[in-house]
Amino acid sequence: MDLLNRIIANIKPLDEKAMAEARTRQDQLTKPAGSLGRLEEVSIRIAGIQGKGKPQIKNKAMITMAGDHGVVDEKIGNWPREVTAQMVENFLHGGAGINVLSRQVGARIVFVDMGIASDMKPDKQLIVKKVAYGTKNMCLGPAMTPEQAVKALEAGIEILNAEADKGLDIVGTGDMGIGNTTASSAIFTALSGKTAEQVTGRGTGASDDQLKHKIDVIKRAMAVNKPDPHNALDVLAKVGGFEIGGLAGVMLGAAARHIPVVIDGFISGAAALIATRLAPKAKEYIIAAHCSAEAGHAAMLEYLGLKPLVTLEMRLGEGTGAALGLFIAEAGVRTLNEMATFTEAGVSEGE
Amino acid sequence: MDLLNRIIANIKPLDEKAMAEARTRQDQLTKPAGSLGRLEEVSIRIAGIQGKGKPQIKNKAMITMAGDHGVVDEKIGNWPREVTAQMVENFLHGGAGINVLSRQVGARIVFVDMGIASDMKPDKQLIVKKVAYGTKNMCLGPAMTPEQAVKALEAGIEILNAEADKGLDIVGTGDMGIGNTTASSAIFTALSGKTAEQVTGRGTGASDDQLKHKIDVIKRAMAVNKPDPHNALDVLAKVGGFEIGGLAGVMLGAAARHIPVVIDGFISGAAALIATRLAPKAKEYIIAAHCSAEAGHAAMLEYLGLKPLVTLEMRLGEGTGAALGLFIAEAGVRTLNEMATFTEAGVSEGE
Repeated sequence: MDLLNRIIANIKPLDEKAMAEARTRQDQLTKPAGSLGRLEEVSIRIAGIQGKGKPQIKNKAMITMAGDHGVVDEKIGNWPREVTAQMVENFLHGGAGINVLSRQVGARIVFVDMGIASDMKPDKQLIVKKVAYGTKNMCLGPAMTPEQAVKALEAGIEILNAEADKGLDIVGTGDMGIGNTTASSAIFTALSGKTAEQVTGRGTGASDDQLKHKIDVIKRAMAVNKPDPHNALDVLAKVGGFEIGGLAGVMLGAAARHIPVVIDGFISGAAALIATRLAPKAKEYIIAAHCSAEAGHAAMLEYLGLKPLVTLEMRLGEGTGAALGLFIAEAGVRTLNEMATFTEAGVSEGE
Repeated sequence: MDLLNRIIANIKPLDEKAMAEARTRQDQLTKPAGSLGRLEEVSIRIAGIQGKGKPQIKNKAMITMAGDHGVVDEKIGNWPREVTAQMVENFLHGGAGINVLSRQVGARIVFVDMGIASDMKPDKQLIVKKVAYGTKNMCLGPAMTPEQAVKALEAGIEILNAEADKGLDIVGTGDMGIGNTTASSAIFTALSGKTAEQVTGRGTGASDDQLKHKIDVIKRAMAVNKPDPHNALDVLAKVGGFEIGGLAGVMLGAAARHIPVVIDGFISGAAALIATRLAPKAKEYIIAAHCSAEAGHAAMLEYLGLKPLVTLEMRLGEGTGAALGLFIAEAGVRTLNEMATFTEAGVSEGE
């Protein structure tokens, strides 16, 4: 709890001076003012996050965290629990979507076992921060203890700090966990007061009947646990997941270290809800990569006050949307840094 | 005219077999079916364009064409005509937005002088296909002769063919030309029958009064020239531009060579209107990178029947939006080619 509290205390507002400097430079570059639209906006925000008028993006990492969910016992989806471990195995062999897209954007990947239900074969690419062998079924009681919730958050902070120590200018977040859209919907309904119907989508492909069942499961979890809407730690413990807590820790850690964090879809969004409820100032450090096809995601982003960069009807998770966001954020920073000014290029300015 | 007709005759429908193969593979990859959304869609279309179930994107080029516009005499904007040449100079020194973003996506850039009003200093990066020293003022008569319109289109085809001979898997289009949003709006109104008000935006930043004047200029150009809405060559000649004709030629040439062409914003869109009116089958070869902030662009894309990949409030031109589109198209193809299948990865499939 000490680490968590210390990190939260370390999260400061963005650097207004650096942002003003970046804004001034954007207006001097050889283009009509504002014509790079959201690339300009993101470059200015990253300037404020890094505290540099000319921010840098050289070292990029994708942090993808995996965990299992006891609520899968309620048969909420089409995919067996084993798929979490199998997909992490696929990550370690380089065959998943997130491997391909991270390679394309030049980001190193950090895979973390936050609470997979089985033991993974040791692998130098996999960091083991296993809080437990999956959460408990939240329909029967809390998914985890309050201590486990703190442990998950602090593991995320530690992972981020270790990566920051290696050199890290921007970080993406991703997830893997069969059942984790259910936990994420539960977090969203618990913190926002929206109904389960409003925040629940089809995840990896639920049918109409399955969706109805999933909503019912979330309602039961709420009734059984009564998470306190004013206490993000309580919500995380009662209806969250280990990878979700870990990702919230990554976001807090990144904010404390002045590193922009590009978040993926619905599960990263649930982690952002936890992180920003624990530390409202963290919000300015978070860049929403995309609006996913998962039904509640648009509402979640709106609730968070984050405007996604792109909408490409993706709903894979793993960080695949965040990888595209890393690219766009880098495009913003590169144009800010590398374009010539009107004076440098000898181009006449518009009136 | 021979070259143009031959190229148009060479544009065939997409390869359905290759598309079916790509679609089948997408459904076998380690992800819920359809969960990569528009990345899957674009990968399947590129399979059909290239005629390969596993298409390839290795050689990428951005073709950015420049030309001047006589209609600038009507004082339609804030930027003096000289800025066209000055910005091309900036391109050749690597300081413009398109330089930065093409570097980021690993695309070589081909700059083409299609009709700049002055002579550029010779430069090995600049291909000179100058049809004339700028178009004539379309408020006083046709912007160019019918022969010049054909010459511009055929120059674009030649440029594309030369690049394809060097190796080209995908191409982006971009433009530079003070006054060319006016010409593009004129083309759109002429071909679509929409009113000048519906298709005219603020270009590089017109005020309310300037916008009103710009609409009036377009209406005068229509009244003076009476372009034939059923004859794209007539429209190009009477109210078009040399770089617009050149880009339409690039699109036709790309379609004939089975190369996907990722188009930028409003000016590339006007070129796509010309290209697809001359050869309706070319449409399937065109990928719309983004919806720009220029007022008429969303309507233009809808009229073309193209759904943009992203909307980032950009309105710079040069190919900057197309560069982002190249990245996303490549992401689609890479995931299609490089992800493991369920069988390869030993992952259980969803029911």
